[in-house]
Amino acid sequence: MDSIEKKLLHEIADLDRLPVGAYNIRLNGKPAARNNSANITIVSKTDEPGIDIYIQPNTVNESVHIPVILSTNGLKDNVYNDFHIGEGCDVTIVAGCGIHNCGSVDSQHDGIHTFYIEKNSKVHYIEKHFGEGSGQGKRLMNPTTIVHLGEGATMEMETTQIAGIDDTLRVVEADLADGASLNVNERIMTTGVQHAESKFKADLKGKDSSCNIVSHAVAKEKSNQHFISMLNGRNECKGHTECDSIIMDDAVVIASPQLAAYSTDAALIHEAAIGKIAGEQLIKLMTLGLTEKEAEEQVISGFLR
Amino acid sequence: MDSIEKKLLHEIADLDRLPVGAYNIRLNGKPAARNNSANITIVSKTDEPGIDIYIQPNTVNESVHIPVILSTNGLKDNVYNDFHIGEGCDVTIVAGCGIHNCGSVDSQHDGIHTFYIEKNSKVHYIEKHFGEGSGQGKRLMNPTTIVHLGEGATMEMETTQIAGIDDTLRVVEADLADGASLNVNERIMTTGVQHAESKFKADLKGKDSSCNIVSHAVAKEKSNQHFISMLNGRNECKGHTECDSIIMDDAVVIASPQLAAYSTDAALIHEAAIGKIAGEQLIKLMTLGLTEKEAEEQVISGFLR
Repeated sequence: MDSIEKKLLHEIADLDRLPVGAYNIRLNGKPAARNNSANITIVSKTDEPGIDIYIQPNTVNESVHIPVILSTNGLKDNVYNDFHIGEGCDVTIVAGCGIHNCGSVDSQHDGIHTFYIEKNSKVHYIEKHFGEGSGQGKRLMNPTTIVHLGEGATMEMETTQIAGIDDTLRVVEADLADGASLNVNERIMTTGVQHAESKFKADLKGKDSSCNIVSHAVAKEKSNQHFISMLNGRNECKGHTECDSIIMDDAVVIASPQLAAYSTDAALIHEAAIGKIAGEQLIKLMTLGLTEKEAEEQVISGFLR
Repeated sequence: MDSIEKKLLHEIADLDRLPVGAYNIRLNGKPAARNNSANITIVSKTDEPGIDIYIQPNTVNESVHIPVILSTNGLKDNVYNDFHIGEGCDVTIVAGCGIHNCGSVDSQHDGIHTFYIEKNSKVHYIEKHFGEGSGQGKRLMNPTTIVHLGEGATMEMETTQIAGIDDTLRVVEADLADGASLNVNERIMTTGVQHAESKFKADLKGKDSSCNIVSHAVAKEKSNQHFISMLNGRNECKGHTECDSIIMDDAVVIASPQLAAYSTDAALIHEAAIGKIAGEQLIKLMTLGLTEKEAEEQVISGFLR
């Protein structure tokens, strides 16, 4: 790995060296490094690009890192990663993709991640998407996350895209069995003429299943964002989605949530708010000695934390 | 008018006799009675069914009643009513439609109401939709309300459909100039296998324009409801929509609101909640001596007030 690739790895996975535990590093469309652990086995797919990750039942306090790095200009990388997580696990999975594009041709990564999470397992899933490079070529990223949550299973998902992605369609689809729960925290910032679309869909099929999706987004300059969510309550369940956006400059933000109750015992709530940073907040910070620009940045970084 | 027609008139317009001021009563697809006032003139359209209502500038504390009654089975009535409201008015307009259908063929009323509200005028608009009758024929009603709000103009709209309408598509579309404001209060209840769809769209074009749409809905038995709203903030403006639904029995409720901010100075908020009546509320009322059924009815009637 050269210094650009190492920097990307740090940005998306907080890694400055090879991680402890299982990992699979994909570099410019090819597997670059892999490690299995006693309980976690990573196998390359033979019919399509990507890997199968098998996690033994009752694996606890272990992690899997599967970062993807694109530093070759103009590469289009498409990958299918399936996670098979046995019963009773408690694991952390760190994914994410970094693109460096200094060329004139677009670079693109589409990652389709499917999770099969068995009974009573807990998964903490972290993904970061990051782009950089001064070229005319765009940096495109379309992450899809499909989550099948078994009885009593839990997923905590943190998904972040703060900088450098010109266009993205981010899809999360989940179905939840009895007692399962899904928590999603999304943080997005777009600048320039970037476009970001987030699409969430959760099918609350199981009794006592629950879902909480919170998206904090900042749209600057001439960028535009579209937030779409669909919560389907099909049993005794609780669902909540929240989309808060800060809009600046000439940006456009659209929020299109949908709640659908197909059961009397479904309790569904949605909240959305779009607005600029409150003037009082800025003034307060400016009286503490910050410039307007610094005050704005402080509010935004707090909002995206 | 026979007793059935008089009862409908009471239900939809609180009228037990001819109203004071201007009115136009439409009975079974034809004008039945009309009165102009010094400031309000009602003229039949010549190119399509319906009327033009002209309200002189600076008309205050006057009212127009334009109820529609359908008691002939199997009638399909389609009517275009345009309201031309001069500057500086403060008027109340009572519309609404009652259908009595004892026959085997569907009865249907589609009313398209367009409001041209000039500078600084205030309009209080009340419409009720009501159906009854024991026949197999359905009672169908599709009210459309188009509102053009001039500078500083205001509309307060109360729209209610509590009983007896088998299928309805309720459309409200508004555009707002500088300083204009729109307030909508919707109350809907569906029972049996009824279907109701409400579609709101407000274009906040003017500086300091504002919009507040609140829908309270109750869906019982096997009925289903779909609430759709679209708030477009195109200037310094404030918009708020709220959709609260009580779901009972085997009903289905879908809420699809959308916020779109095309200006940094737009502040848009949406809230939606779907759920059943809280158990504690029922228990509290039952300790006061009400049966469960009575307690439920009391909660619903409060919610729909």
